[in-house]
Amino acid sequence: MKKTNDILIESAEIVAVGTELLIGQTLNTNTYYLANQLTLLGINSYYQSVVGDNPERLLAMLKTALTRADLVITSGGLGPTADDVTMELAAEAAGKKLVLDPVSKQSIEDYFTSMGRTVSDNNWKQAMMPQGALTMPNNNGTAPGAIIVFDYAGKKKAIACLPGPPGELELMFEQSLKPWLERRVNYEFEHRFLHMMGIGEANAELEIKDLIERQTNPSVAPYASPGEVCFRITQRKMRGQAEADLISPLVEEIKNRLGQYIYEDGARTLPEIVFALLKEKNQTISFAESCTAGMISAKFGAIAGVSEVFTGSVVSYSNSSKEQILGVPSAILQQYGAVSKECAEAMASGVRKVMNTDLAISVTGIAGPDGGTPDKPVGTVFLGADYRGQLTFEKHIIRGNREKIRTVASLRAFHLAWRCLKEKSDNS
Amino acid sequence: MKKTNDILIESAEIVAVGTELLIGQTLNTNTYYLANQLTLLGINSYYQSVVGDNPERLLAMLKTALTRADLVITSGGLGPTADDVTMELAAEAAGKKLVLDPVSKQSIEDYFTSMGRTVSDNNWKQAMMPQGALTMPNNNGTAPGAIIVFDYAGKKKAIACLPGPPGELELMFEQSLKPWLERRVNYEFEHRFLHMMGIGEANAELEIKDLIERQTNPSVAPYASPGEVCFRITQRKMRGQAEADLISPLVEEIKNRLGQYIYEDGARTLPEIVFALLKEKNQTISFAESCTAGMISAKFGAIAGVSEVFTGSVVSYSNSSKEQILGVPSAILQQYGAVSKECAEAMASGVRKVMNTDLAISVTGIAGPDGGTPDKPVGTVFLGADYRGQLTFEKHIIRGNREKIRTVASLRAFHLAWRCLKEKSDNS
Repeated sequence: MKKTNDILIESAEIVAVGTELLIGQTLNTNTYYLANQLTLLGINSYYQSVVGDNPERLLAMLKTALTRADLVITSGGLGPTADDVTMELAAEAAGKKLVLDPVSKQSIEDYFTSMGRTVSDNNWKQAMMPQGALTMPNNNGTAPGAIIVFDYAGKKKAIACLPGPPGELELMFEQSLKPWLERRVNYEFEHRFLHMMGIGEANAELEIKDLIERQTNPSVAPYASPGEVCFRITQRKMRGQAEADLISPLVEEIKNRLGQYIYEDGARTLPEIVFALLKEKNQTISFAESCTAGMISAKFGAIAGVSEVFTGSVVSYSNSSKEQILGVPSAILQQYGAVSKECAEAMASGVRKVMNTDLAISVTGIAGPDGGTPDKPVGTVFLGADYRGQLTFEKHIIRGNREKIRTVASLRAFHLAWRCLKEKSDNS
Repeated sequence: MKKTNDILIESAEIVAVGTELLIGQTLNTNTYYLANQLTLLGINSYYQSVVGDNPERLLAMLKTALTRADLVITSGGLGPTADDVTMELAAEAAGKKLVLDPVSKQSIEDYFTSMGRTVSDNNWKQAMMPQGALTMPNNNGTAPGAIIVFDYAGKKKAIACLPGPPGELELMFEQSLKPWLERRVNYEFEHRFLHMMGIGEANAELEIKDLIERQTNPSVAPYASPGEVCFRITQRKMRGQAEADLISPLVEEIKNRLGQYIYEDGARTLPEIVFALLKEKNQTISFAESCTAGMISAKFGAIAGVSEVFTGSVVSYSNSSKEQILGVPSAILQQYGAVSKECAEAMASGVRKVMNTDLAISVTGIAGPDGGTPDKPVGTVFLGADYRGQLTFEKHIIRGNREKIRTVASLRAFHLAWRCLKEKSDNS
């Protein structure tokens, strides 16, 4: 059912209201959720803001946002206390009066009755709505939301007020604001992400500089992602119309130039890709971790259903555990040390044997801050792989602190696992 | 060493730069971190903003923020690509030129050399700094940061530019920006943190409601910390003056009321406390992890020097690995299942034996989303401990998604380790 467009929404600005956000006590997940939803709807967002429960500053913020966007979405400040001033100020910014909304009054009463509680006087405040506003029911709490459409400096603008608790905000967005928005946008955006490893961002960008600078539709932009390089390709389409796929030819061109580094054309993480490949091949994996101390296994364990392909791991921090559980020969430890290709390979073979898996990946290195030598500085990491008896290793020097070294070593381990599984797929 | 105050910082505004934040692809943890740090320094923050990698809008945003705060802190947009324009626009807002900073140039060169890579031309861009700026080294990446102090509309203002990757931003803040700020605020705040576990926040607050509502100097406030309850006790002092310690009597009073739940009066995390206790006792620990799949070990492995007390762990995801490596009797698995107190205890004993440690902690549970039964719903977690032959177990039902269940189970494991070590200390 297409509705006459009272307002066309091309841009929106999220204004989160709450002192708890300003003092760093609450992580702003509402803005993250709303921003993602706006992107999926093809609505541009050029600014996001946070402001405290201060009437003067909040009003100024709303007015500033209204000069920059068609729609301003607020989160928070709809509660019953004197601190909660968002609805009042949204009405003021829109030049509307607050009036008692009988439907909201009734639903507040129903909510309290269903909880076996009586409504306190200040709860009625939550039924005061800007005149002419579209009320959005709160099916997860007491404070209703509102959408106000009005003329502002000669243009049609809108303010949508959502409650602060994430469970209430997300339900209200999904049930009320999203359907309202879907009837008021012209475009939708399609995004694709190419993830790569083994090349720096600057070098990767040089390879596709001409494609990035084209800056038309679709567009290509680097996308920050720790330990890897990622590019986002975006095409803008008219809503509801079949349009030519402009993304695929561009992706093909990027793959022609950077294909050897690309491990994912999509949204999956490296551990998820390794999981999918193992499942597809009906094979299993195990890990032997020294400096990463369980980080690789924990990341893999974060994937639901991973027990199908994941038998387990050995965190062999001490030399004795490397010898006794993984069967690393003491001669190797004495001659080459625990941080060596020989030890990495022996660890991989050892864990593959005790865990009885098709593939095993090992990591041994110096995460620091101590333990570095001129030969093997902090950040020296050896990875080993045993894939059905075929041994390989890799050496990396990773810069950064202990956390960074361990995180990047973990990513590298999944990258090695991916290449083992991938190469065998390609050749078979 | 007290420095003449070139600028006094009473307020700061955080401006996060990045299209990935606007499109809702990245959660804005940098602003959360910085807001929390500013609060600890006693610096007020009235607005937070996010803006994309768009020169015109970013410049406008910086100028707006400069009219509202003494200091503007930016995060992101310091990379080598054409998209990265923050430093250039910060210089423009401050009325400064960009000049090549030889120290930054050298450290970029060193970084690439140590990685065995060559510097690509666009990396030199990162060594261009606003004239007269104080450069902040990046000890976790390539892009250096900068602090610029300048006159703006008749007042002293400052812009501090930090990199976007959280690991780089946090280290640079800690090492460079924080010490710089500490010399430019009027007050200093002394904070003490009481960490507790085993009581909910609402109940803990009820016990000390009168102390919280006192709202004077020092103040008591709940402090956000996932999986535990924490209170922050803060005393405001004039910088550089000796003042009476008002915190200690208040801490004593809280300990009188909630002492049994408090595991730390200080800044240490639970894993760090377990590490310190083990070191003090010259004892060792190992872990057997099923549903947490290495998370406990990885958290412990994050502590520098932990190899003194940490031998290793077994991630026994499959039943066969529980039997074969940890020696869990198959009768236990058949009769009680892998998620049972019997299995948890057998896992603890098993890993203590193979890793040859004084203490061993085990976790087995159902992290979901599948695998729950009416008897053992998703979130059912058994912990086991074997401390020099003495066995104990705990059962928890943890609410939340897979990630939450695993994270809370990990915290509980450290809590159990702490109590094992603590009780023996107290009794001996």
